[in-house]
Amino acid sequence: MREGYHLRLAELGEHGSSMCQVASDALRDATQALLDADLALAERVIASDVQLDDMRANAEKVAVELLALEAPVARDLRIVVSALWIVADLQRMGALAIHVAKAARRRHPAHVIPADVRPIVERMGRVGVHLADQAGVVLRTRDVELARQLEIEDDLMDDLQRDLYNSLLAPTWRHGVAPAVDISLLARFYERFADHAVSIARRTVYLVTGENVGGDTTPAFASRD
Amino acid sequence: MREGYHLRLAELGEHGSSMCQVASDALRDATQALLDADLALAERVIASDVQLDDMRANAEKVAVELLALEAPVARDLRIVVSALWIVADLQRMGALAIHVAKAARRRHPAHVIPADVRPIVERMGRVGVHLADQAGVVLRTRDVELARQLEIEDDLMDDLQRDLYNSLLAPTWRHGVAPAVDISLLARFYERFADHAVSIARRTVYLVTGENVGGDTTPAFASRD
Repeated sequence: MREGYHLRLAELGEHGSSMCQVASDALRDATQALLDADLALAERVIASDVQLDDMRANAEKVAVELLALEAPVARDLRIVVSALWIVADLQRMGALAIHVAKAARRRHPAHVIPADVRPIVERMGRVGVHLADQAGVVLRTRDVELARQLEIEDDLMDDLQRDLYNSLLAPTWRHGVAPAVDISLLARFYERFADHAVSIARRTVYLVTGENVGGDTTPAFASRD
Repeated sequence: MREGYHLRLAELGEHGSSMCQVASDALRDATQALLDADLALAERVIASDVQLDDMRANAEKVAVELLALEAPVARDLRIVVSALWIVADLQRMGALAIHVAKAARRRHPAHVIPADVRPIVERMGRVGVHLADQAGVVLRTRDVELARQLEIEDDLMDDLQRDLYNSLLAPTWRHGVAPAVDISLLARFYERFADHAVSIARRTVYLVTGENVGGDTTPAFASRD
C-alpha cells in the first residue's frame, strides 16, 4: 500500500512536469505559427487541448484518490493540494497557447503581426517558453530560489507587454484598428501565460515551505495594471 | 471534534457565498465606474482586492486543515476539494472586476466607452453580475439543474463579446485605435469573469455528482474562439 502511495505521489509530479513541457511546446509552436502565418502548425497546436485536458483529468483523479485512500498529512498533503492548483495553471497555459494559435488561423493567410512589432512578439514568445521551461524545472527540483527568480523574469514579460501596447497606441501606428485589436488580445494571452508560470512557482514554494501566498490571483498580479 | 468538523465544512461554504457576493458587487460597481467615468467608485473597487485575497487565504487554510485533521472521504472530500477550485475562480473574478475599474481610472476624466457601444457594455455588466449571483445561488443550494443553466447564460456573454468586437472592427468605427484597444481588453475581462462563474457551477456539479468535467480550463472554453 505504501509503495502504491509513493508511486502515486511521484505520478503527480510526473504529470506536472509533462504538462509543463506540453504547454511550453504549445506556446513555442503557436508563436511560430503566428509569426509565419503557418496554418498547419496552428492546427496542430489547436488539436493539443484534448491532450492537456486528459492529463489534467488524470492528475486530479490521482490527487483525489490519494486524499481519499491515504489521508496524507504535512508535506505530502501540501504536495497533493498544490498539485490541484498547479494542474489548473498548466491547463490554462495550454488554453492560452491555443488562443495564440487560433489568432494565426483566424487571419490566415494574412499575417497577424506586422513587421514593425514582430521583434516584440518574438521576444514575448521566447520569454513565455522560457518561463514554462523554468516552471518545469521548479516542479522537478522544488528549488525555492529558482521559484522566486521566475517572478523577476515575469517582470520582463510585463515590460514587453507595455512596449507592445505603446506601439499600438503611438501616432506612428499605421495598421489600423483590426490588427491593433488582435495584437492587444495576443499580448494579454502571453502575459497571462507568464502569470500562470509564476503561479506554479509560488505553489511550489508553498509545497516546500508551507508559506501560502496564493497563485496568480493575488493583489500583486492585479496591481500590475 | 465532529461538531468542529461540520462547522468547518459549513464555514467553507460560507466563504464561497461571501466571495461570490463580493465579486458580483465588484463587477457591478466597476461597470458603473467605467460607464460614468466615476473615479471614486473605481478606487473603491480597486481597494477591494485585499478583501478577496484575505477570504481566499482563510478558505484555503480551513480546507487544508480539514484535509489534515479530518481526512474526509466521499462527498465531504469533494466539498473540500471543490472549495479549493472554487475559491480560485472567485478570486480571479474579483481581479477581473478590478481590471475593469482600473481601465476607468486610467482614462479618467475621459470616458472609456463611447456612446455607440455603451448599451453592449451595460449588458455585459448585467450578464456578468447575474452570472456571479447565480453562481452564489448554486453554491448555496447545490442545484445541479441551475448549475447547468449557467452555461447557457454564458453563451449570452459570448454573443455580446462578439457583437462588441464586430463594432470595433466595423468600417463605421470612428473612435480610432486607443479606445478599440481598451474595449477589446475590457470585453476579454467580462468574458473571463463569466467563464469563471460557469467554472464554479461545474465544480459544484462535481461536488454533488462526482462527475469531473474540469472548471474553466476545458476544451469547450478554448474552442469558443
